[in-house]
Amino acid sequence: MARVSQEHLDARRRQILAGAARCFARSGFHGTSMQDVLKEVGLSAGAVYRYFAGKGDLIAAIADDAFRIIRQSFEEAADLVPPPTPDILLGRVLRGVFEGRIFGMGRRECAALIVQVWAETLRDEQLARTLGEGYAGMREAWTKLVEAYRAAGLMPPGVPADDVARTMIAAAQGFMAQEALFGGVEPEVLENGLRGLMSMDPQKIS
Amino acid sequence: MARVSQEHLDARRRQILAGAARCFARSGFHGTSMQDVLKEVGLSAGAVYRYFAGKGDLIAAIADDAFRIIRQSFEEAADLVPPPTPDILLGRVLRGVFEGRIFGMGRRECAALIVQVWAETLRDEQLARTLGEGYAGMREAWTKLVEAYRAAGLMPPGVPADDVARTMIAAAQGFMAQEALFGGVEPEVLENGLRGLMSMDPQKIS
Repeated sequence: MARVSQEHLDARRRQILAGAARCFARSGFHGTSMQDVLKEVGLSAGAVYRYFAGKGDLIAAIADDAFRIIRQSFEEAADLVPPPTPDILLGRVLRGVFEGRIFGMGRRECAALIVQVWAETLRDEQLARTLGEGYAGMREAWTKLVEAYRAAGLMPPGVPADDVARTMIAAAQGFMAQEALFGGVEPEVLENGLRGLMSMDPQKIS
Repeated sequence: MARVSQEHLDARRRQILAGAARCFARSGFHGTSMQDVLKEVGLSAGAVYRYFAGKGDLIAAIADDAFRIIRQSFEEAADLVPPPTPDILLGRVLRGVFEGRIFGMGRRECAALIVQVWAETLRDEQLARTLGEGYAGMREAWTKLVEAYRAAGLMPPGVPADDVARTMIAAAQGFMAQEALFGGVEPEVLENGLRGLMSMDPQKIS
């Protein structure tokens, strides 16, 4: 019997995950059966169960991969020197996530998968832990960034850096929800919108 | 046989919806069976099916009510004269949604229900239409508000009002996602965070 190469095993594993991700983005985790996944990837049950014991394994592997791409986009943007302003930064994050092409999916499918992961996280302790750690890490990295804005005199000293960091993360999350629900979210919208908010003249506001 | 008053019917209907909303917030639409709902409200199948033909009816009625409270919060905030600045406005929206106590639920349960509605919207055309109309209405109302900022000299003329409106909506949506996933979102966080972004000195940014 021919030995199956590691590359072949890896490629097959990714093929299964990509098919499952498409199913989950379309129908949610609970609306997808293992039968749906087998049909989507065009493989036998035996071929799929060789890699994944069940839906729970698929969900965990897909969420891990999605988190990795999202966290990478957030972290790469936060590591830029000098730190870009929030508009540029968040535009990069959104582009990173959408172009990261999680499992080769398009922008709207990626966004839909993210919303499905959020919903699943509400009832899955393991996912909640992973997502909670990722969020804490982003919050910390972006708080440092806001402190760098303050140090550079771009923001007044009294501003609570953690609150600004959470608001920036919220803007990115909200745009992912908008893309999933309505489509048509260009990263430029977030860039322009933040630039608009930043341009409000604080002198004229009582 | 005693005639049942309209108030009694209405109260019973709300009791069923409140119990179903708690189930959906906890376990999602697909993770909740009609049996779960019956158990939660403590009524017989006959009593519940008198009001709702099935889970689909419950989902539609609950989503309608949640949308109404959310839209009301957005619209009330947009109708204030003179228009409050984005930080004050979004703080009010978040408070309105959280204190609207959708079906008497607490803040985190409300936020969880909203995320579940988003996930369900991805596979339910009727919900997608309702949510799409609500979003279009908010976007329009808030675009007018941004135009009012420009007219009052609070924002430079070149800023695309629709992009700012979408970014403000995204910040509110993102905070609902954060509350659902991690809890601990005080409306002050959004107020401070936006104020921080608004305070970035545009003169110092090239």
